Amino acid sequence: MRVMGLDPGLRALGWGVVETSGSRLVHVANGVCRTSAGPLGQRLAALFEELSDIFARFAPDEAAVEQTFVNKDAAGTLKLGQARGIALLVPSRAGIVVGEYAPNAIKKAVVGVGHATKDQIGHMVRLQLPGVEIAGPDAADALAIAICHAHLCQSRSRQVAAAVGGAR
Amino acid sequence: MRVMGLDPGLRALGWGVVETSGSRLVHVANGVCRTSAGPLGQRLAALFEELSDIFARFAPDEAAVEQTFVNKDAAGTLKLGQARGIALLVPSRAGIVVGEYAPNAIKKAVVGVGHATKDQIGHMVRLQLPGVEIAGPDAADALAIAICHAHLCQSRSRQVAAAVGGAR
Repeated sequence: MRVMGLDPGLRALGWGVVETSGSRLVHVANGVCRTSAGPLGQRLAALFEELSDIFARFAPDEAAVEQTFVNKDAAGTLKLGQARGIALLVPSRAGIVVGEYAPNAIKKAVVGVGHATKDQIGHMVRLQLPGVEIAGPDAADALAIAICHAHLCQSRSRQVAAAVGGAR
Repeated sequence: MRVMGLDPGLRALGWGVVETSGSRLVHVANGVCRTSAGPLGQRLAALFEELSDIFARFAPDEAAVEQTFVNKDAAGTLKLGQARGIALLVPSRAGIVVGEYAPNAIKKAVVGVGHATKDQIGHMVRLQLPGVEIAGPDAADALAIAICHAHLCQSRSRQVAAAVGGAR
């Protein structure tokens, strides 16, 4: 199963793709879509076109994004919402339901504790995907979200397998 | 010149198209794209597909949206941002720069004063587009935005014409 994690932002939208094969986790690709100053609509269109290309290229089976608990100013929240809309739109257009995970759930899945720092997340992502070049903190966060989704899907399928095994 | 006004919302996204010919203002079409409960990504994808179809069908030359001054709760602001991203994305993909107008500027252009109520706006839109069936308050707001943009473009082109005339 191939999972794309997304860390939305208007200036920098991180993305990361991992693949699970049994209990193994393999890195596929990661990167950051960037937009510079300019009319808001043009920046959103640039994010949309670039992310649509990346999505078509890596064809993930599932996608996930961080649940946003907004504690910024209202203008910042509105901006984030606009970029987040694009991140949700692209996989949804392909018929994929986008998983949403609370920041603490992502940290717990990747680092083992719910209160990890950004640096710790980057470190654990690097440990779990050894030798991978990561395009920056936004890409590391996106990979963490993908890893979280992959882990939860694996443990769900193990539970199903155990339940089926027990029913035999 | 054909102008599409957009009043974004996740549950109801109002749209309205008007055409100017000299100083005349003609109604082309209006409506509301609606989404019901369900995964957020699917709702955004539904808005995107429907609005893209409407945009292609009426092929406006220009587009405009209300500037949002957010004074709602953060969760509401994030939701609005996500829907607003779609409203900005669709015209921008066609290379159209989307005009943004402050609510007071829209009220002033349509009603003549900056502190008009929603009912007054609906009333003045109906007066300026006599006999037109309007699909609801969101569509009326979208038409008001389109009228505001059309008026400002007309007065700008009159100024240019006067300046050119004066220079002769």
